[in-house]
Amino acid sequence: MDFRYCWEDFTPGRVFEHGERRLSEDDILRFAREWDPQRYHTDPLLAKQTPFGGLIASGWQSCAVLMRLMCDAYLNESSCVGSPGIDEIRFLHPVRPEDSLRFRSTVLESSPSRSRPGRGSVVFRWELLNQDAVVVLSMVGRQFYLRRASP
Amino acid sequence: MDFRYCWEDFTPGRVFEHGERRLSEDDILRFAREWDPQRYHTDPLLAKQTPFGGLIASGWQSCAVLMRLMCDAYLNESSCVGSPGIDEIRFLHPVRPEDSLRFRSTVLESSPSRSRPGRGSVVFRWELLNQDAVVVLSMVGRQFYLRRASP
Repeated sequence: MDFRYCWEDFTPGRVFEHGERRLSEDDILRFAREWDPQRYHTDPLLAKQTPFGGLIASGWQSCAVLMRLMCDAYLNESSCVGSPGIDEIRFLHPVRPEDSLRFRSTVLESSPSRSRPGRGSVVFRWELLNQDAVVVLSMVGRQFYLRRASP
Repeated sequence: MDFRYCWEDFTPGRVFEHGERRLSEDDILRFAREWDPQRYHTDPLLAKQTPFGGLIASGWQSCAVLMRLMCDAYLNESSCVGSPGIDEIRFLHPVRPEDSLRFRSTVLESSPSRSRPGRGSVVFRWELLNQDAVVVLSMVGRQFYLRRASP
């Protein structure tokens, strides 16, 4: 297969940006009722009585939005073969109905695989920003990519 | 409000278990097509040609299942007032169609808030296990809870 992005393309310091995704109140309610039915995610009236003062999106929905924007930005044109995990997810700012979110990805580290010469590993900082350029979600994640040419 | 679980109930070493949730192929496809449209999550035929050898659930869907089981286990009867973030998410084993998942939560640390006397912080290890008792997902997360009685 011929990929637009392979391991070699993710050089430390490179930044990718992509957006945007607007979350309606209905989008927030629909996700939360299935996956995270806490009152500040599922009930606009009860949410007013919580410390958040109104409805906010599940943090896992923010993660899902980030993932979708990453797929659209580059992942689905890449040689990615999975992720061992994520570190340091920080829910920095509430996501509220009609917020419009965009994705920023910064390459932090890159290293060829020692055990599998056709692969490499990349560590990214992934962020989601709202319409006021406030970072609402930040995380560090590692992914494996096939190399363009085995050494 | 009167909560079944407050900060005082999450003592280090306490374990909560709850399950189970079965993910059908359709559940996996529906989530992935909206949030994580990588070929090994959205296309059973193309997935066979990837290193996973078949369709697997998005790691974010596993996180969502974990969250839902946590809500059902104790969170929705608790005084939880949010989470600052998650550390160390590890996707340890693929989740495949018809896998049946259960939730295990272990309290790692607990501390009263210094700045807000009516609250406390709890650090948990959260895990998702499949029908073979294999841990497929593991993470460490912190949550804030109201205390039963302010000191």
